[in-house]
Amino acid sequence: MPQNTNTFPVSTSASEIEPFRVMKILGEAKKLQQAGHDIIHMEIGEPDFPSPPCVHEAAMQAAEQGLTHYTASMGLPELRQALSDFYREFYGADVEAQRIVVTPGSSCALQLALSAILDQDDRVLMADPTYPCNRQFVKLLNAEPLLVKVDHHSRYQLNLQILRDNWQQGIKAVMVASPANPTGTLIEQDELLKMAQFLAQQNAYLIVDEIYQGLVYQRPAESVLAQEDLPNNVVVINSFSKFFGMTGWRLGWCVAPPHLIDILDRLAQNLYLSAPTPSQYGALAILKKANLTELERRRKIFEQRRDRLYDAMQNAGFRLKLLPQGAFYLYWDISEWSKDSEAFCRELLLNTGVALTPGTDFSPGQGCQHVRLAYTTDENRLVEAVDRIAAYLQTKTTT
Amino acid sequence: MPQNTNTFPVSTSASEIEPFRVMKILGEAKKLQQAGHDIIHMEIGEPDFPSPPCVHEAAMQAAEQGLTHYTASMGLPELRQALSDFYREFYGADVEAQRIVVTPGSSCALQLALSAILDQDDRVLMADPTYPCNRQFVKLLNAEPLLVKVDHHSRYQLNLQILRDNWQQGIKAVMVASPANPTGTLIEQDELLKMAQFLAQQNAYLIVDEIYQGLVYQRPAESVLAQEDLPNNVVVINSFSKFFGMTGWRLGWCVAPPHLIDILDRLAQNLYLSAPTPSQYGALAILKKANLTELERRRKIFEQRRDRLYDAMQNAGFRLKLLPQGAFYLYWDISEWSKDSEAFCRELLLNTGVALTPGTDFSPGQGCQHVRLAYTTDENRLVEAVDRIAAYLQTKTTT
Repeated sequence: MPQNTNTFPVSTSASEIEPFRVMKILGEAKKLQQAGHDIIHMEIGEPDFPSPPCVHEAAMQAAEQGLTHYTASMGLPELRQALSDFYREFYGADVEAQRIVVTPGSSCALQLALSAILDQDDRVLMADPTYPCNRQFVKLLNAEPLLVKVDHHSRYQLNLQILRDNWQQGIKAVMVASPANPTGTLIEQDELLKMAQFLAQQNAYLIVDEIYQGLVYQRPAESVLAQEDLPNNVVVINSFSKFFGMTGWRLGWCVAPPHLIDILDRLAQNLYLSAPTPSQYGALAILKKANLTELERRRKIFEQRRDRLYDAMQNAGFRLKLLPQGAFYLYWDISEWSKDSEAFCRELLLNTGVALTPGTDFSPGQGCQHVRLAYTTDENRLVEAVDRIAAYLQTKTTT
Repeated sequence: MPQNTNTFPVSTSASEIEPFRVMKILGEAKKLQQAGHDIIHMEIGEPDFPSPPCVHEAAMQAAEQGLTHYTASMGLPELRQALSDFYREFYGADVEAQRIVVTPGSSCALQLALSAILDQDDRVLMADPTYPCNRQFVKLLNAEPLLVKVDHHSRYQLNLQILRDNWQQGIKAVMVASPANPTGTLIEQDELLKMAQFLAQQNAYLIVDEIYQGLVYQRPAESVLAQEDLPNNVVVINSFSKFFGMTGWRLGWCVAPPHLIDILDRLAQNLYLSAPTPSQYGALAILKKANLTELERRRKIFEQRRDRLYDAMQNAGFRLKLLPQGAFYLYWDISEWSKDSEAFCRELLLNTGVALTPGTDFSPGQGCQHVRLAYTTDENRLVEAVDRIAAYLQTKTTT
């Protein structure tokens, strides 16, 4: 059969999907580690802490009781209610349980929300830099991502003025994140409200990624859902991965306006049936007040790390353009060293053993001169990483 | 703000996504049950057994060791290897671990495979009746499902002749399932090979759903992957849900030809990052030979149920057109009683307490006169269900 060695046609749109460049760095870092090198991992956007024990204890207890079947496609009713209570108690937001859709990771929440809103050729406005998947999701739906370059003057965020300046026909939604990946910056709540109101006038949606909610420093964590007079065009994406430390359990949620709920339910039934059951029972446990203490302890550790890493970078002469207020990232402009962040990351990995993420994952426009540092490792290791990088770049300058 | 009560535009293609009608029946059945009625559940396509204890024990052990982070997007290397070994040992199939992609449920495997293959306006041929999501997935990718009505003469399956007779421009893939949902029938392996070879000549793919693999009666379970000279256009979808009884853990996999692996990896990274970590450790445990004994015990129970239910149906005069060889379903032609299976299912539920699934979930063409019976409850209850239905339909005939 000649077909045995043949390759058959693949989807053009899927071929254009970009890989996560961080996975390549991670792969190379792991190889070096296995070969005996001392690698400092600052590349992956994942807390270094495992999920708190109450999570697997509750998941196990449920499984022992035979609770291992599918749940309702929208999630366990008691988990949706617990999230509703959580919004009321911690964020002063009145969010009915019926508006909360529990999903297998926030990736699926994003996919659901975009699928429910977009038709082919619709446009979606988003900041450059932003979370890599956003533009890929939009493309997979045969819609068009419109990236707007932002810089430190707007804290790497969109705002009302930027929306106005970049408005064009066919925009069905705007995607923002607060705190944001890769920059760690926030959008003020009154600005978000103004943006939602402007978009309501345009008959468009505002999708707010709050998956780093809770990981906010020197100020209280907030949700756009607490805003009064929020129009019915706001969809919020959230996750148990980052603040709750449950990455591998693959659990997220979205909060949608009432008119989208039925369509989200049908999409969920078809796209994935239901979120993992053990993870849902684990999430129920961690939402209990008693179990949140450990998360607050971890939040404080992230805050200390941010401060130590930021200071170390500044002291080394690596000018950061702002101090981020959330998430666990610093976004470093490396243009004085390189205009090719992928080559720069490889070079640093090989010569210093420090693994960072090239900005090209987040930004087609300016990612080549930025690098993301994740402070998802021990404080002293973060400082050591900066020392190693500084020493290496020093040798380069002097030779 | 007038927008507060406004509803904003929703996606046209998502609006057309059909709900699972079985969920409506399930909802009504649960309400009746809560009101004190004795309901026999034969509607849901899910084994009544919980997942075997080795699954949650292994998941727990891994979590206690801190293994709660993301895995590689393609799955734990040791799980991919274990699946490769499983194919060799149980199916005599030589499947390299690199060709196996572990997914969060087989739904995601289907979505990955179709996304990797289809561009908008491509066509996908499938049997009517078939698994409901298949046509929805295709539509979500702005491609076109072509449904071919099949009946008991082809055991409700496509075959080479049907492919030839229904061939047309633009078909990029054909989807089949063996054993099939909702009919429980198989396609013989030599027929599958011929279909794959015909499709290879057309530069099209064959997607084989083997998620009920292992649940086969009076004959050995098989995989198309064991066929020699299989062209590189075959993608196999599988799941830990049915035979392995892990529904709520949301874990499946797909086996793809080598030229699709990179694109599947990129899609996985973007669509869902990775499958649930505890579920992957659980799956590793259940693949061990020692733990398969329990699954064989369950398979035998399903076989006994099939025989009892089939006999009871025949004795009651409910003519079934064939004895299915796999899965846990009977497909009943109700045309002598009703031409509206949704109304018929509601009527039976209200009058007999037996919950069945209307064929319209599986078949836009002929589902209105078919009903699916799932033998996912105790044998004696199955017989009681038939008795109740027979008694009720008898009163209808005589009045």
